[in-house]
Amino acid sequence: MNNSLFNPRSVAVIGASREPTKVGYTLLNNIINSGYRGNIYPVNPKADEVLGLKCYKSISEVPGEVDLAIIAVPAQVALEVAEECGRRGVKYLTVISAGFKEVGSEGADRERELVNIAKKYRMRILGPNCLGFIDSYTPLNATFAAVTPRRGRIAFVSQSGALITAILDWSIKRGIGFSKIVSLGNKADLDEVYFIQAIGEDIETKVILLYVESIERGKEFVDVAKQTSMKKPIVVLKGGVTEAGARAAMSHTGAMTGGFTAYEVAFKKAGILIANTISELFDYAMAFSNQSIPAGSNIAIVTNAGGPGIITTDLSLKAGLRLSSFSPSTINSLRSKLPPAAAIYNPVDVLGDARADRYRNALDIVLSDEDVNGLIVILTPQAMTEPIDTAKAIIEVSKKYLGKPVIAAFIGGEAVREAADLLINEGIPCFDLPERAVIALSGLCRYRSYLDELEKVIEKYVKFYDVDAVRAREIINIARSDGRRALLEIEARELMRAYGIPVPPAFLVKSEDEAINAANKMGYPVALKISSPQILHKTDVGGVVLNINSDAEVREAYRTILSRVSRYAPKAMLYGVTVQKMVPKGREVIVGLTKDQVFGHMIMFGLGGIYANVFRDVSFRLTPVTPSEAMDMIKETKAYAILKGIRGEAPADVASIVNVILRLSQLVQDVPEIVEMDINPLFVYNEGEGCIALDVKVVFS
Amino acid sequence: MNNSLFNPRSVAVIGASREPTKVGYTLLNNIINSGYRGNIYPVNPKADEVLGLKCYKSISEVPGEVDLAIIAVPAQVALEVAEECGRRGVKYLTVISAGFKEVGSEGADRERELVNIAKKYRMRILGPNCLGFIDSYTPLNATFAAVTPRRGRIAFVSQSGALITAILDWSIKRGIGFSKIVSLGNKADLDEVYFIQAIGEDIETKVILLYVESIERGKEFVDVAKQTSMKKPIVVLKGGVTEAGARAAMSHTGAMTGGFTAYEVAFKKAGILIANTISELFDYAMAFSNQSIPAGSNIAIVTNAGGPGIITTDLSLKAGLRLSSFSPSTINSLRSKLPPAAAIYNPVDVLGDARADRYRNALDIVLSDEDVNGLIVILTPQAMTEPIDTAKAIIEVSKKYLGKPVIAAFIGGEAVREAADLLINEGIPCFDLPERAVIALSGLCRYRSYLDELEKVIEKYVKFYDVDAVRAREIINIARSDGRRALLEIEARELMRAYGIPVPPAFLVKSEDEAINAANKMGYPVALKISSPQILHKTDVGGVVLNINSDAEVREAYRTILSRVSRYAPKAMLYGVTVQKMVPKGREVIVGLTKDQVFGHMIMFGLGGIYANVFRDVSFRLTPVTPSEAMDMIKETKAYAILKGIRGEAPADVASIVNVILRLSQLVQDVPEIVEMDINPLFVYNEGEGCIALDVKVVFS
Repeated sequence: MNNSLFNPRSVAVIGASREPTKVGYTLLNNIINSGYRGNIYPVNPKADEVLGLKCYKSISEVPGEVDLAIIAVPAQVALEVAEECGRRGVKYLTVISAGFKEVGSEGADRERELVNIAKKYRMRILGPNCLGFIDSYTPLNATFAAVTPRRGRIAFVSQSGALITAILDWSIKRGIGFSKIVSLGNKADLDEVYFIQAIGEDIETKVILLYVESIERGKEFVDVAKQTSMKKPIVVLKGGVTEAGARAAMSHTGAMTGGFTAYEVAFKKAGILIANTISELFDYAMAFSNQSIPAGSNIAIVTNAGGPGIITTDLSLKAGLRLSSFSPSTINSLRSKLPPAAAIYNPVDVLGDARADRYRNALDIVLSDEDVNGLIVILTPQAMTEPIDTAKAIIEVSKKYLGKPVIAAFIGGEAVREAADLLINEGIPCFDLPERAVIALSGLCRYRSYLDELEKVIEKYVKFYDVDAVRAREIINIARSDGRRALLEIEARELMRAYGIPVPPAFLVKSEDEAINAANKMGYPVALKISSPQILHKTDVGGVVLNINSDAEVREAYRTILSRVSRYAPKAMLYGVTVQKMVPKGREVIVGLTKDQVFGHMIMFGLGGIYANVFRDVSFRLTPVTPSEAMDMIKETKAYAILKGIRGEAPADVASIVNVILRLSQLVQDVPEIVEMDINPLFVYNEGEGCIALDVKVVFS
Repeated sequence: MNNSLFNPRSVAVIGASREPTKVGYTLLNNIINSGYRGNIYPVNPKADEVLGLKCYKSISEVPGEVDLAIIAVPAQVALEVAEECGRRGVKYLTVISAGFKEVGSEGADRERELVNIAKKYRMRILGPNCLGFIDSYTPLNATFAAVTPRRGRIAFVSQSGALITAILDWSIKRGIGFSKIVSLGNKADLDEVYFIQAIGEDIETKVILLYVESIERGKEFVDVAKQTSMKKPIVVLKGGVTEAGARAAMSHTGAMTGGFTAYEVAFKKAGILIANTISELFDYAMAFSNQSIPAGSNIAIVTNAGGPGIITTDLSLKAGLRLSSFSPSTINSLRSKLPPAAAIYNPVDVLGDARADRYRNALDIVLSDEDVNGLIVILTPQAMTEPIDTAKAIIEVSKKYLGKPVIAAFIGGEAVREAADLLINEGIPCFDLPERAVIALSGLCRYRSYLDELEKVIEKYVKFYDVDAVRAREIINIARSDGRRALLEIEARELMRAYGIPVPPAFLVKSEDEAINAANKMGYPVALKISSPQILHKTDVGGVVLNINSDAEVREAYRTILSRVSRYAPKAMLYGVTVQKMVPKGREVIVGLTKDQVFGHMIMFGLGGIYANVFRDVSFRLTPVTPSEAMDMIKETKAYAILKGIRGEAPADVASIVNVILRLSQLVQDVPEIVEMDINPLFVYNEGEGCIALDVKVVFS
């Protein structure tokens, strides 16, 4: 890989040690044993030679260029060493040393200083407080881990170093191989964004696995991951998902962990697959590192036992896969090649006495069916079973059908071990339980649908030219100069008008006569509402009168409101009374906005009305959103069924909601200081009749 | 175990063979090798000696009593052999032979004949078409499986024989041991109900695992499992969960598979834990076979690595566990015993350099905290880590806290293998990934809450004495004699009245004058509805007029209805017109009933109104239900939040819904021929104001 962190021409190990219990010993030993072909320079003022290599007193004494320096000295001297590296022209630092941000404010100061030194000399830093990294193809093992992994196609980038050491040991018995392993440590400089981009270009890597607890550069992360996802799959295990989990994350890295919803929304936008467990992370990876991406989610199951076939069917359907419907010719071929008692419909049961040949025939017939996009083959060791020959048959047949992934579940222990190893070595993921095969295959299928989704995301954004961004900014500025952080109802309505979002006609008036005048301009019925920056909940102080039908009623309502408000909110500063046209009731939905500190603005769509809080029937997207995304947001909710019309109702004007979502998306691009916003309710009328934003709340920073 | 199937005094193997490839050879060999201490009689007309034992020409020639005969001859001669066994006084048959129900109608006839023979001689049958069974304590391995399992505390009863052979092989490497293994085969006689009861009494077994695809004796199953669940946990993996899965189940065993909802409801009633995967089934079992049941779901996590601690926290909370809040004294002790950088709040991070002693201290302090009900201890192999000594520390400390289960996750491969084996051998479940530890501990905690639930289920049923069962039966009989399978609206209302469920006042009238008379008796407003057995959807034919406020309007509505009906449903037989009092609108819920062919009547509660179909917010219970169960049904739904009152609404009369549920439960006990029923909507008024069944549909068989 053409990157001088992963593929440096020379490596210095500062803090190299002759003590086998020291990190500086293991590090150097790993570099040597990994077969690294560049120059290796141990640096230690107290040694002349370490592990058979000449040792230098300091980095300054090292002859020739040094691309990479690995710093494994106490934090107290690390800065000095970094400075020396800078002067020496080192390009990359990998700082193993702990004692930085993770230990409190003194460490945080030290970390900032480290970054400043690196900037001064244009060095990049991995760490500090990390395990190092491994590149299996350079090859270079620049970690102090006890185990060297198998070479493979999986890159693993982890914010937890201990997780890497544990997984390395565990991966051996599972037959999992890696292309690259990176321990991010405190991410003072190089972070997941950097590595996703770098490894995205690495031809040796087929899948990128991430373990992250926090992401700081949210927008760059989404952009880079989205570009990379189109080339190769990214699977993430996010630590700190739940509230208490997030608390643990804070005590662990001192990093801010956003709410998981924002992460989920961001991962979705970036086409990143989410794994829920370590096992899932690697089961996905096993599939991605060798198998191709299927054209769809229709799968076949071939088994030599009914029960496991049923279990696999259940789990596949739960995982969102579908069972292929075989063509008549597939059915006929199976019928002619299999014994009469075999099940020839999907799942195919080749029966307990099936030898390798019968498996081969069944697999060949099933994989040739057009409706089969991928296949799970199950083997249980029975008296006549030939695990190894069956494995060979699977390998042989699967090569004929390259676009169709094949995943094996050989259920058992010793009886199937050798056969399973054979499959894994030949690139067919083989698991000991069917549930893991289902997860692996469903990962491949999910990636296919993510690729299809990504096309929507890269579709052009709609830009509205009928909006008045200048006026929008003015509205915010006036409110801000007024010392407020939220807009008045009348201002929020004007903001909506500036962005072409329909609101009911309304005027702010200061007298009974003005109110009557306004009502006559709009036509009855109207509503009157108090307008005051101090009164957020107008109904609570009697500040609202609805369904007013005449001049006399306007007059009476005006007086009633003012008298109630003077009684219940005597100190409120009054801007006047809003006269608003009553509009017919539509189906109630909510469109809202919130700003996540990591990923920026998220737009929300959901069911409105009294059930909104009970059912939490909402969907989110990061802004900006495309028309397809806006439509998907609506379709994802159950409210969509209501909008389409149930019990013979006419369909609602969904296109008008899409329009509102897109315009709000543009609004926060133009006026990013808006941090929260609710249109609740948005009344949606029948198809072609549009929608109206009844109540609008806007909070800005 | 005092049961002559599992612990026979003597065993005959009919079809014992000298051919090592034959089932009859492996069977006999397994019996001998398992160390069985009773008499073993091989039976084969063509041999004098098999595997060193004297062989008999027929079962009749065998000297002494034979408790158990294992039949491994072709199906064609199995009946003859069974007859001979009967004459010979055999008590139990285990029929290995295939060729019965699973091969079609001829086989089904043969199976019925087999059952008849057994009944004649009072023999019980395991199978046919099964693998046999194993009792590790008798000891007796009466299967033809290739592997003999480790001895342990888990009983595994499976409807799939192949699953048993695969799991036996697989269980060895996982360190899982069994007390009993039973292959049910076609379940011609002995079924899961029999074995749950028998093994429920077995002191060697601590947990019963079931793999079932179908259950035939639904009510007995629930009764027996409920009794057994109170003594020891039952965990089930149900094959054929999804529709396509169910299809596979039918082709596999020819058994009827009920919809999964009925199974879920039945398992819940019986206190059975559901596993979703094979791995879950055994992860649960590992915990149950050695650890005690915790007092609650508050857990602690002790780890030597932050990342895995965070992952475990996330998964625990997702699984419904809670993290304990440590007492100040726990916090103080941890602070004094652990290094300053350690995390002393839950999850406790003893840091990467923790040796066994530090683990011991942390575990001891944490387990002594009153709020800790159970604990997960995580180890990642790092430079200073002492896996084996840490394992010993865990074993030692856990013995001090017997009511508090301890589950280990030693993440790794070779580096932790020996330590993991040590833990498992000492009864501490140890997994290689934290997700499995979480599943195991959550299983223990779920069983605790099931035990608490079971107390509700065994609470006394309420019996209402103000009901008129005779009248209810009459109503059904009249409708039946009329050739109908559904009640008219007016009949359904009367049925409700007979069971004390409030309905709006209503009269069936045959003339305008009668209608006016009825309206005046009840008071206005009223509604008029056509009554005809042919008209199910009255509104569609214009057969309903609502909100009638005067005698004149009644007259007009009566005429309108009759004229519309004569136009749109000219052939319908008319019983008259129903005059019903209009009642105020309440919160809309649905209470319904359905009869499952396996488990009997299930009662349903859910949200009513237009959102009912969109949100499917419903809960089910098998009847009869207790008051606590009825209350739980309501609480399980999101509708409960609406009933409690949102946005300042007064709470609804939930007690009146409980009353309706209990009365319906009693109704189907008294009149079991009701197969379907809907009260939709049930209008629920504010607390103390009751509810009214607006529309009632009743279908009977």
